[in-house]
Amino acid sequence: MPKHMTGVLAPVVTPFDDDLKPDVQRLVAHSRSLIAQDCGLAIFGTNSEGNSMSVAEKIDIVDALLDAGLPAERMMPGTGACALTDAVTLSAHVAKRGCGGALCLPPFYYTNATDDGLFAFFSELIQRVGDDRLKLYLYHIPPVAGIGFSMELYERLISAYPETVVGTKDSSGDNAHIQLLLDTFPGWGIFPGNETNLAAFVRAGAVGTISATCNVNAAAIVDLYRNADAPDADARQAAVNRVRGAFAKYPMIAAMKAIIADRNDDPVWRNLRPPLTPLGAEDTAALKAALDEIGHTVPA
Amino acid sequence: MPKHMTGVLAPVVTPFDDDLKPDVQRLVAHSRSLIAQDCGLAIFGTNSEGNSMSVAEKIDIVDALLDAGLPAERMMPGTGACALTDAVTLSAHVAKRGCGGALCLPPFYYTNATDDGLFAFFSELIQRVGDDRLKLYLYHIPPVAGIGFSMELYERLISAYPETVVGTKDSSGDNAHIQLLLDTFPGWGIFPGNETNLAAFVRAGAVGTISATCNVNAAAIVDLYRNADAPDADARQAAVNRVRGAFAKYPMIAAMKAIIADRNDDPVWRNLRPPLTPLGAEDTAALKAALDEIGHTVPA
Repeated sequence: MPKHMTGVLAPVVTPFDDDLKPDVQRLVAHSRSLIAQDCGLAIFGTNSEGNSMSVAEKIDIVDALLDAGLPAERMMPGTGACALTDAVTLSAHVAKRGCGGALCLPPFYYTNATDDGLFAFFSELIQRVGDDRLKLYLYHIPPVAGIGFSMELYERLISAYPETVVGTKDSSGDNAHIQLLLDTFPGWGIFPGNETNLAAFVRAGAVGTISATCNVNAAAIVDLYRNADAPDADARQAAVNRVRGAFAKYPMIAAMKAIIADRNDDPVWRNLRPPLTPLGAEDTAALKAALDEIGHTVPA
Repeated sequence: MPKHMTGVLAPVVTPFDDDLKPDVQRLVAHSRSLIAQDCGLAIFGTNSEGNSMSVAEKIDIVDALLDAGLPAERMMPGTGACALTDAVTLSAHVAKRGCGGALCLPPFYYTNATDDGLFAFFSELIQRVGDDRLKLYLYHIPPVAGIGFSMELYERLISAYPETVVGTKDSSGDNAHIQLLLDTFPGWGIFPGNETNLAAFVRAGAVGTISATCNVNAAAIVDLYRNADAPDADARQAAVNRVRGAFAKYPMIAAMKAIIADRNDDPVWRNLRPPLTPLGAEDTAALKAALDEIGHTVPA
């Protein structure tokens, strides 16, 4: 198996200014805070509102983060798109700039696509990028995308492109599916899509996690990842899950942004691009109270 | 109610060359054939593989068709996108070039978006385009997009932007829903998304149809539309439905392209962009036999 990324990554939330433009300065600051906690940068994920930005906006953000000195090898930008040409453009840029990986959704408008069609899509993508530096992670999130990867498709893509198709993020929300991947593809770069069973999955061979909550709880999740074998792993897992549980009662992106805005005293952080909407004042107050009760703090 | 488009439009299938680039020459020829049959051009619909092309590719196609002399007032390009910025870019271009309408999907990655969020998305879109020439048709196709428009959202958008939000394409596949729209918004620009009940819907106030099968059966569908009140409307409807039924046994886009390729003796027309795949030889032969049996011909 080729080398893959490891560790804890955040699908980095994207700040938008009051004109709804990506706010690079705030994004750099948030990314630096994550890296300082040893949390990698899965920018342009679902929780980044990645599909709410154009390819040109995303290329500009990749360049801005790298120009600010953030480490390419800890970056795994989302590069999937419904249009093959868009996926090629962004994936090629990410490979050229040396990012550690590219996290690629299937073309999600086509929820009835066949395995043959999806195999053709990823084959064309890889061949058109034509760059050994491209390291693809297949983004399996059927509850949101409406389509995912069958076990047969995983197998075909790994066999055809073993040096390029190096891992997956599994956001199926189905722990049995994650376990099946771990059993079927040992040594592959498998990232569960949340941290709620992280210690056990790391012990079973998962290489880390890419999880929304890392935006607001990176240090504790990194700590859990490093101590998956420790005697108190269950207690660490339970503590992390309490924080996740508090956020998960609300629309996740809006909730995380509301808390980041609050802790930084920076209301711009509350903005989301439509069709997503900010968390209301009442929900924000209730979430803050719940976090206070469990003693959770977010670094400013 | 402001003026809206009327008549029969095809979601124009997009030919791709063997390198999978949009083939403008073939697209112009097919579009001319449709216009010659009095069928308008809803380019970049679902059946156009509209979401398989980048915004830049779509802008180039709009310009190429207009430069070739095809009538802007009969064009209703699809301009929806998950990213607000993409939807604005393409909608602004379509408005600036004087296209009769823009058919706009909701941001379909966000299948849990609220009515407030969707209202904000379309409000931002309309205000950012900022062009009175923009005439929006809301594209309601929940079976594919995973999200659609509630009756309350239709009402809010029409009330807020009466001169811009001038109609809808209803591809719900639910005739009761189309009838509800006709009853609720009389005089609005309501296009059923297929022709299978066209005569009755035209009698009930529908202003036309935008249907896949127009790519291969435009003349008969236009004839049905014009003669919805004729004594033999039922027989015309039944004949049209037999053709639709033959195609609907197969993946629609691949089936239409296979027949266009066959009738033009031009295998390039068989190409689809991944993840969609061409119709197999056996299915193509069976479809041809079925069309022969019902006496259906496609203009070359």
